[in-house]
Amino acid sequence: MPSGAQSEFDLIDWIRRRTPENPRIQLGIGDDCAAIKLLSNECLLTVDQVVEGIHFDLASASPEQIGRKAIARALSDIAAMAALPAAAAASMLLPEKRGMDSAKRIYSGMRTLADEFDAPITGGDVSVGGERLVISVTVIGEPRGERLLTRAGAKPNDIIFVTGDLGGSSAGKHLTFTPRIREAREIVRTLKPTAMIDISDGLAADLGHILKESGVGAIIESEAIPISRAGYKTAAASNSAPLENALYDGEDYELLFCVSEEIAQQAPAALSNGIRLNQIGAITREKNFYLKTGHSERTLKTQGWKHIIE
Amino acid sequence: MPSGAQSEFDLIDWIRRRTPENPRIQLGIGDDCAAIKLLSNECLLTVDQVVEGIHFDLASASPEQIGRKAIARALSDIAAMAALPAAAAASMLLPEKRGMDSAKRIYSGMRTLADEFDAPITGGDVSVGGERLVISVTVIGEPRGERLLTRAGAKPNDIIFVTGDLGGSSAGKHLTFTPRIREAREIVRTLKPTAMIDISDGLAADLGHILKESGVGAIIESEAIPISRAGYKTAAASNSAPLENALYDGEDYELLFCVSEEIAQQAPAALSNGIRLNQIGAITREKNFYLKTGHSERTLKTQGWKHIIE
Repeated sequence: MPSGAQSEFDLIDWIRRRTPENPRIQLGIGDDCAAIKLLSNECLLTVDQVVEGIHFDLASASPEQIGRKAIARALSDIAAMAALPAAAAASMLLPEKRGMDSAKRIYSGMRTLADEFDAPITGGDVSVGGERLVISVTVIGEPRGERLLTRAGAKPNDIIFVTGDLGGSSAGKHLTFTPRIREAREIVRTLKPTAMIDISDGLAADLGHILKESGVGAIIESEAIPISRAGYKTAAASNSAPLENALYDGEDYELLFCVSEEIAQQAPAALSNGIRLNQIGAITREKNFYLKTGHSERTLKTQGWKHIIE
Repeated sequence: MPSGAQSEFDLIDWIRRRTPENPRIQLGIGDDCAAIKLLSNECLLTVDQVVEGIHFDLASASPEQIGRKAIARALSDIAAMAALPAAAAASMLLPEKRGMDSAKRIYSGMRTLADEFDAPITGGDVSVGGERLVISVTVIGEPRGERLLTRAGAKPNDIIFVTGDLGGSSAGKHLTFTPRIREAREIVRTLKPTAMIDISDGLAADLGHILKESGVGAIIESEAIPISRAGYKTAAASNSAPLENALYDGEDYELLFCVSEEIAQQAPAALSNGIRLNQIGAITREKNFYLKTGHSERTLKTQGWKHIIE
């Protein structure tokens, strides 16, 4: 063992010394489990994983950005249910060549966002080896409100909304996005959505998830889909149509949700923090998924970016 | 895409169809988060990761065994706190060459143990790619009893106990062990331990964790340490001393705990299911860690098997 070599226990100690006290965490890093006090006896659980070469590249992302992204994806799942995070934990496979400094920087990036959303990191697991950096983040959340906001409540004639702009996330936003936790709370308060999801697989795929779980169909309008500047740029660079990028790129981490027709008529065009809301279409009883462009309609594939298993 | 290729969504659907209803799971696989009803507003959280080439080898372990081991390690953390599991979730990095059949078999192995301990698998995340199979399992647990049983409560003169036998786990037990959840409940009821841990890093390292967290020392006796047959065999094969294997091999997943002197005097030699308990030494006020062999004593390194980060 070369001098300066340190073990996972040293890393855990380093992290532990930097972890502030939190009244909700009865037992934090350094025991077999963490112990967390919740507001009620109901909790949410989500696990999200990022893998070098799939979700990020070390040539274009700093360790801090990677740590931040790893927890941001899980927090985005909490946002999709309009909940608030209560605690987080992470496991990491750290290739030998990366070393302690990378591990600390990954943790620091994770902590930045964890602190912003009051999601104390309560523990984890580190293994050293392998070829690729792999980080899996678990977040425990707490539902707020009387009923769970799932993918399953969309009803015929509901209006479909999306926050922000879509497409071209791989040009940068996938590393810097802020999970829409605050926006989700505001949407629930003002618009009482019937179903909600965060856009990770792509607008088409994620609306597809809502349609499947709700047992409904949809018509969305090409002109109404908010395409980001990155979506246009990516399209120009790859000689594709910008709309296709907005539909299929994924990793937008915007909120996609459905609202009753009556409430939709009073829907604001923007949230209080200035993030735009766009009406992109409507839910139908008929279980098809159409994209309307001018007077023509085409059936949309719900397949976004996804992993193929042979 | 060759015919027969399937996506992560197909795998998730396959898993979802096989997931039985559970009254505690309000929302299971197929939404952004799972929603779990707990018995109280207190929960435990643990995350454990297994990595191909570090924690298992596909040449000597079946996919079912790997899935089982992945969740068994996390359940062993729940056992170490004498708690019961409430729900589980998993993330997996699946190399392309492994394919859907492996993924299903890993899940089946995980389910076997999850069902045995009533730890419903409520969700997860799958990525396809990379060189090594990596599985991270999260378990949410529920403490039972008035106070948390941690690593931190050992007191001078407490007697140190261990369940079962130690050493040589890599010969097979690391794939087949049963987390000591039931035994932990019995130990709490009958022996009121002051501190407890599961032996994952090795007896010396894990007792070291208890000593550090409790601010105490210990003397343990060579002759009292229960060495497994696998520990003897491994020692013979590697020309090492069997005692060293019992002290340092790790992955025994037995329980190591401390009990007051008074209670220790009435301690049974075995648990109701026949698993032996061995008294291996005592806690001292002086913060040293000694191994006593006959009339001689030597200071013990607490370093078990651990990951070195340079």
